[in-house]
Amino acid sequence: MEKKPSSRSKRGWEDLEVVGGNGLLDRRAFLRGGAALAAAMTGYTLVESAAAEQLAEDPWSKVPGNLVPAYGVPSRFEKDVVRTLSNPNGEPRTHHARTPHHLINGTFTPNGLHFTIVHAGIPDIDPDKHRLVIHGLVKRPLEFTLDALERYPMVSRMTFVECGGNSSPLFSKEPAQGSVQALHGLASCAEWTGVRLSTLLDETGIDPKAKWLIAEGADAPALSRSVPISKALDDAMIALYQNGERLMPGNGYPMRLLLPGWEGNMNVKFLRRIKLVEAPAMSYYEARTYTPILPGGKAYQFYFLQEIKSFITQPSPGLALKGPGFYEISGLAFSGNGRISKVMVSADGGQSWAQAALQEPVHSKAFTRFRMPWRWDGGPAVLQSRAWDEAGYVQPTRAQIVAARGESQRVLPVTAFGGQHYNGPTSWAIERNGEVKHVYA
Amino acid sequence: MEKKPSSRSKRGWEDLEVVGGNGLLDRRAFLRGGAALAAAMTGYTLVESAAAEQLAEDPWSKVPGNLVPAYGVPSRFEKDVVRTLSNPNGEPRTHHARTPHHLINGTFTPNGLHFTIVHAGIPDIDPDKHRLVIHGLVKRPLEFTLDALERYPMVSRMTFVECGGNSSPLFSKEPAQGSVQALHGLASCAEWTGVRLSTLLDETGIDPKAKWLIAEGADAPALSRSVPISKALDDAMIALYQNGERLMPGNGYPMRLLLPGWEGNMNVKFLRRIKLVEAPAMSYYEARTYTPILPGGKAYQFYFLQEIKSFITQPSPGLALKGPGFYEISGLAFSGNGRISKVMVSADGGQSWAQAALQEPVHSKAFTRFRMPWRWDGGPAVLQSRAWDEAGYVQPTRAQIVAARGESQRVLPVTAFGGQHYNGPTSWAIERNGEVKHVYA
Repeated sequence: MEKKPSSRSKRGWEDLEVVGGNGLLDRRAFLRGGAALAAAMTGYTLVESAAAEQLAEDPWSKVPGNLVPAYGVPSRFEKDVVRTLSNPNGEPRTHHARTPHHLINGTFTPNGLHFTIVHAGIPDIDPDKHRLVIHGLVKRPLEFTLDALERYPMVSRMTFVECGGNSSPLFSKEPAQGSVQALHGLASCAEWTGVRLSTLLDETGIDPKAKWLIAEGADAPALSRSVPISKALDDAMIALYQNGERLMPGNGYPMRLLLPGWEGNMNVKFLRRIKLVEAPAMSYYEARTYTPILPGGKAYQFYFLQEIKSFITQPSPGLALKGPGFYEISGLAFSGNGRISKVMVSADGGQSWAQAALQEPVHSKAFTRFRMPWRWDGGPAVLQSRAWDEAGYVQPTRAQIVAARGESQRVLPVTAFGGQHYNGPTSWAIERNGEVKHVYA
Repeated sequence: MEKKPSSRSKRGWEDLEVVGGNGLLDRRAFLRGGAALAAAMTGYTLVESAAAEQLAEDPWSKVPGNLVPAYGVPSRFEKDVVRTLSNPNGEPRTHHARTPHHLINGTFTPNGLHFTIVHAGIPDIDPDKHRLVIHGLVKRPLEFTLDALERYPMVSRMTFVECGGNSSPLFSKEPAQGSVQALHGLASCAEWTGVRLSTLLDETGIDPKAKWLIAEGADAPALSRSVPISKALDDAMIALYQNGERLMPGNGYPMRLLLPGWEGNMNVKFLRRIKLVEAPAMSYYEARTYTPILPGGKAYQFYFLQEIKSFITQPSPGLALKGPGFYEISGLAFSGNGRISKVMVSADGGQSWAQAALQEPVHSKAFTRFRMPWRWDGGPAVLQSRAWDEAGYVQPTRAQIVAARGESQRVLPVTAFGGQHYNGPTSWAIERNGEVKHVYA
């Protein structure tokens, strides 16, 4: 076997249309066929026909394989594709488990890798004994078992959940060095299946004085958040299934409130109570943690929406490029306002931009995978993405969001709790040796 | 707390429009709001307001919870939501692991529960040493590492994979008693992400004499199947990711051929070789197992397509109804020809039908969840579904398919290997005690 440049007459990468500075290429060429990348560009190996006929037998081809388990788990060779844990020994403080976006692909997050934040561990709830009570300003207070909920009309929808503190290291004065998992790992996306909250409120009836609801979890802190009744009657769901199976224990088993596009913490897990009320409760997590203080000293009282965001997952820190050549730039975009309408990608730090392909179908308030072919010439490059949604919103620049919200004077360790609701761009510098660094550009 | 019928003035189930015989109801009423089901119909419990204010603390609300694992797994209370295994001790024969469709919900199958068939266990493949070779009638034989494939433009798509032998118990002369897992558990659906085979064939070039390819796995039997080159250039994919993470070991890790809508066995797992050839190989699994013999003695030489099918997952055997009242009938429909266009449901053994709601978006060649509200009056009922696809195909009746293919004279145990490609309806009889039985109707 030998590795050498191609000498084919067919159209190769050198003929592909350049659609943006520093090597961004036209993706349509790949989709319509007829474009080839040439050996020097991708790292494949030419083989002799005779050698291909007589492939060597690898060890696993010569012996019977492993047992089939009742519940499948990833290969032992994927042991590093896991969530990073902020509190692995279970000290009496919050646990964060972050999604390894750089090591996965597709449009949503597998259940084993969905991010989790819990403030007193994961409660070990017996689903047959768990109850959901809806009371307060209703006509008939009602209690539901899981079996009762199972009988109602259900809906399924893809939607992301994101912590308001996701991406907070980007408020640091200097770019924090960490993987996309460390910087943006507190957002994940799943297909959730359950009963619309509006269906249950049809059962209880609503007193016209009710303007808010307070949702309370069955975890030890009884985490509570206030939600306007308008959201409850819009697209709120009592979620029972996550990507087809029952909710993961860390994601609210056996049931959670799902508020598509709204701050993760409001999607109350281990949901045991919904109380309809006239005014918000100003509970711990809304009064303290999730009220960003602005440079002038004022604060948002509430900040429900997770606004439009995007980041590049491949390449990204920890995934070094293996020499000049062809690569696919790929990432995730999402908006609490609805569908992503456009993602632009730059390879020259924002001097020029080209439009990325979006994986269809694009779901509302869900991860959207974008992809852009790229030829790295081995020189300096800074990769960025910027997203637009169907409501007309676009990601702000980092300068804009820092001017509005303030910049942290500390260089945060990437696991520390920083600011809230950063949704500007993320910039990856490609160094000459192929390594990828977080920079501000 | 007391449980009693409602005496509300608002519109209840008794006012819902009946859209089919034996209690099929209008689903739109639930989606537009304003329909309530009334206490007697769903099994919820009325609670006193004072009791709701002072909810009892369950044991898990009083203590710190469990550690957050690096890779999430289902609750210990879900230990029965697993695949059934035909060969749990690893005897030297085929292993089948069937999806528990009655215990999950949504539109696709979580990775832990995706069905698996392997003929000599699951090979323990080191992805860094695995290679894919494309050779034969190509211009340049090429070898790809996983790292090389990662650099190509990728696509994601939802698609089902179904064994040609799925549903084979339905050929039995008498209805086999088993769950939907036992009868239809050899079909699953996932989002697969990888590189189009056509992209790689652009790299190798294709000799015009090539009409077929032979795909070969790295498992001990070197499972091989022949595929027309037209499918390779249509929607075939080298799949690297399953529902976002690397393929499960039992589903082809580190890479498989994906042929959306075609017989499961052709989607060659552990893919190590694609050889372009002039004529099919007539390999073991196409020459022997997958050539259904017809009543007249002739056989199909090939039967690539998994044709349109549907079945009801809830209620189904093993999920007894808990007394008369409201239930959602829910199930799965899919077609190798494209999108599901319509699913009709009957509660009276096919005498009358009503159109079910389809979960949007409906993906081509993928599971489609259908749902239909139903009021069970406690009397006899036989539930059936029948699906149509965008290409105009409809599920045949059982009589039609048995007339064409022959009926097994044996009452098969549901785990035995029976006929191939059954795609008629499945009928569930509801008994007076709420139990669900498989019947022919």
